[in-house]
Amino acid sequence: MKLFPMPSNATSRRVPDSGAARPARVALVGAGPGTRDLITLRGAQRLQDADVIFYDRLIDPDLLDLARRDAKRVYVGKAPGCHSWSQEKINAFLVAAAKRGERVVRLKCGDPGVFARGAEEAEALQAEGIEVEIVPGVTAASAAAAATGTFLTKRGRNDTLVLTTAHKADHSTPPDWVQLMASGARVAVYMGVSKARDIVDLLESAGLAHRTVVDIVSHAETRRQKTAQCCALELVDVIADRKISNPAILFFSLGENSECTFLSEQPPALVTMA
Amino acid sequence: MKLFPMPSNATSRRVPDSGAARPARVALVGAGPGTRDLITLRGAQRLQDADVIFYDRLIDPDLLDLARRDAKRVYVGKAPGCHSWSQEKINAFLVAAAKRGERVVRLKCGDPGVFARGAEEAEALQAEGIEVEIVPGVTAASAAAAATGTFLTKRGRNDTLVLTTAHKADHSTPPDWVQLMASGARVAVYMGVSKARDIVDLLESAGLAHRTVVDIVSHAETRRQKTAQCCALELVDVIADRKISNPAILFFSLGENSECTFLSEQPPALVTMA
Repeated sequence: MKLFPMPSNATSRRVPDSGAARPARVALVGAGPGTRDLITLRGAQRLQDADVIFYDRLIDPDLLDLARRDAKRVYVGKAPGCHSWSQEKINAFLVAAAKRGERVVRLKCGDPGVFARGAEEAEALQAEGIEVEIVPGVTAASAAAAATGTFLTKRGRNDTLVLTTAHKADHSTPPDWVQLMASGARVAVYMGVSKARDIVDLLESAGLAHRTVVDIVSHAETRRQKTAQCCALELVDVIADRKISNPAILFFSLGENSECTFLSEQPPALVTMA
Repeated sequence: MKLFPMPSNATSRRVPDSGAARPARVALVGAGPGTRDLITLRGAQRLQDADVIFYDRLIDPDLLDLARRDAKRVYVGKAPGCHSWSQEKINAFLVAAAKRGERVVRLKCGDPGVFARGAEEAEALQAEGIEVEIVPGVTAASAAAAATGTFLTKRGRNDTLVLTTAHKADHSTPPDWVQLMASGARVAVYMGVSKARDIVDLLESAGLAHRTVVDIVSHAETRRQKTAQCCALELVDVIADRKISNPAILFFSLGENSECTFLSEQPPALVTMA
């Protein structure tokens, strides 16, 4: 089943449907936040073409229904802090499937280019002479903002957006995005729940915690979605009280007032879709 | 025509198909880079449901073929530096169409939350009691990276990504993202071609221009796509020589060497899809 005719520039890069000369090839496909209908048309097309799909822990099972019934679905369980498969094992299976001539999709949460370790998989594949196609997706920050009716940038107020992650390879301190936030940037920390204490410390040492507003969105676009808004000083307590867990995005921006006064007047807003 | 059954959490927010009580409502839909097949399934569904679509200059006309044949297509010509319609006029037409009870889609390039002035449109609509739904999209940086086979972050090397724009409301100097770049961030400047000179000056004053690598992607995912890689010191000349124009993303990151030595040995790589 074809969703739509492909545009000519995409068609020229498509794999022929048959023939022994078909090059070994893997599509790294961004699933978006994991909800079935926030993948791109091209991503859905690749799923429908796939012989085998390697997918992550955060992918909504409904999304896999887009694939052919006889396609192999391989759960690799990859998620920060919870790797069922090592990256090396994932790489090895991708290489092996592509070399068998199978149409391989590596389905990744969000966008393959943003905190998805796509570069490591692409390098392993290319080292074996396997072609890699990247199908971009909606990154988690975009999905989280949209799900809560907010915008990542706002002309004249937040003209810069920083995407960073609390799960870094070297576990060092986060880069100093605090100065950019102070000059008007909005900062989205991916998978930030477990590092909230460290981030608040960073803001406190810069003298900014009392006027930094945090918007929290966990499990965006799923039935488990939770959102909350609080002052950075309250962040650790709000996360604990509301039982907020990763996958979550923490958005940091400087409040318009010299203190987060609204917070003492009303409890943090909490909205669930369940 | 329905593409797919909607997931339950989306269904609960859908507009009923008939009835006078249907609330006035506008969907701000991210089109992705403009190519027909990089919109999300949800975005395509909204296009198919729409009575009227207000679209920007950068949208590929093929994308509008996803809409019903009898849907009104209104070109508002909005693009940085080239506004056929003022923002106020766009807002007024969105409000009027929604109040007439039409299903309105405001189709925006990339993601509505990133440099799309979505907040201004949403505020104008909400001030008139009109519901706003945001359908996220693939932002231009993700599309540009994917189209060139690269990744926006790389574990252990580029753990932070900065998205900023050369077209700011106040035309002031860009925020100081240079320090973040120096500590390992990758910086994507949207619509940066016309401000390349200013950016290079900023890097030179920080003593970093000679070892900053720039990846240029213009008209990503279209037949006019051009890409080039150069040292920041060459950026202005490369843009002029290669006739690179907006829409374009300039990616800045610190090179691995103390100087962009590769640049004196070979001409900047240029790839076109045409």
